Amino acid sequence: MAVILGVDPGLASTGYGIIREAGGRLECLDFGVIKTSAHASSGERLETIYSVLSDLLRTHRPDYAGIEGLYFTKNVTSAIPVAQARGVVLLALAQFRLDAQEYTPQQIKQAVVGNGQADKEQVIQMVRVILGLKAPPRPDHAADALAAAVTRLHSCFGR
Amino acid sequence: MAVILGVDPGLASTGYGIIREAGGRLECLDFGVIKTSAHASSGERLETIYSVLSDLLRTHRPDYAGIEGLYFTKNVTSAIPVAQARGVVLLALAQFRLDAQEYTPQQIKQAVVGNGQADKEQVIQMVRVILGLKAPPRPDHAADALAAAVTRLHSCFGR
Repeated sequence: MAVILGVDPGLASTGYGIIREAGGRLECLDFGVIKTSAHASSGERLETIYSVLSDLLRTHRPDYAGIEGLYFTKNVTSAIPVAQARGVVLLALAQFRLDAQEYTPQQIKQAVVGNGQADKEQVIQMVRVILGLKAPPRPDHAADALAAAVTRLHSCFGR
Repeated sequence: MAVILGVDPGLASTGYGIIREAGGRLECLDFGVIKTSAHASSGERLETIYSVLSDLLRTHRPDYAGIEGLYFTKNVTSAIPVAQARGVVLLALAQFRLDAQEYTPQQIKQAVVGNGQADKEQVIQMVRVILGLKAPPRPDHAADALAAAVTRLHSCFGR
């Protein structure tokens, strides 16, 4: 049995998804987004992400983690708040002694849909099917986090 | 009396400097760099920065903090590790309920030397004079952190 956490970091909204593999069966334990207020300071927003994520780690005690990494962008101004949030996520995972792997959006699409150029909706629908969810997971950041968890599972077990 | 922390965040080396103002006199309490190993994972390196900085906060209990911010760069690849380290620094300061101000290198040079275009050596020498240090503070990241603390003091007291 293995519990895998997926995270899609962002300052305004950090997606998370927790899945469990047991005897070849996959199930979704939890997913959602950690939202922070645009009226709060950067420090307060990062504290919210760290604190909620640390609670999730204590509750679900995952064995592995997959993170959606930053893809190359020419817009450094928009990349910096995401990188700050990612720093706090990597800290929380390291404090929990979790071996966190980072994946590009293309690697995640390849692992989940079998096509690195798949669109967002295809990823969401495949995540729904793989995890046997009744409805497509929403919002997007939560679906991306579940997809990162599925990608990590693939790389653990070569499935 | 006020104790002010300055920080110059970086993944490999985060500079810190702690100064105290009492009755119009300034003194330097501590300065140095938090170094992390290039052989460690990003998560482990961020954990070192967070843990040493949190210890410094508990020891010196600063009232204010000044941080050297990211200046605009076209090199997003080099900016991301710095931003991740800065996220962890902002988290530690927020957990300590510290009101952290960010300054550009130009603002710091203007506050310390009176010239936003001053070179590194001028900043180091002015920091030495302002704080009455026997020798110029080294390495550069520690001197930059002390300069950020001095800048924060200026903005608190209009000196």
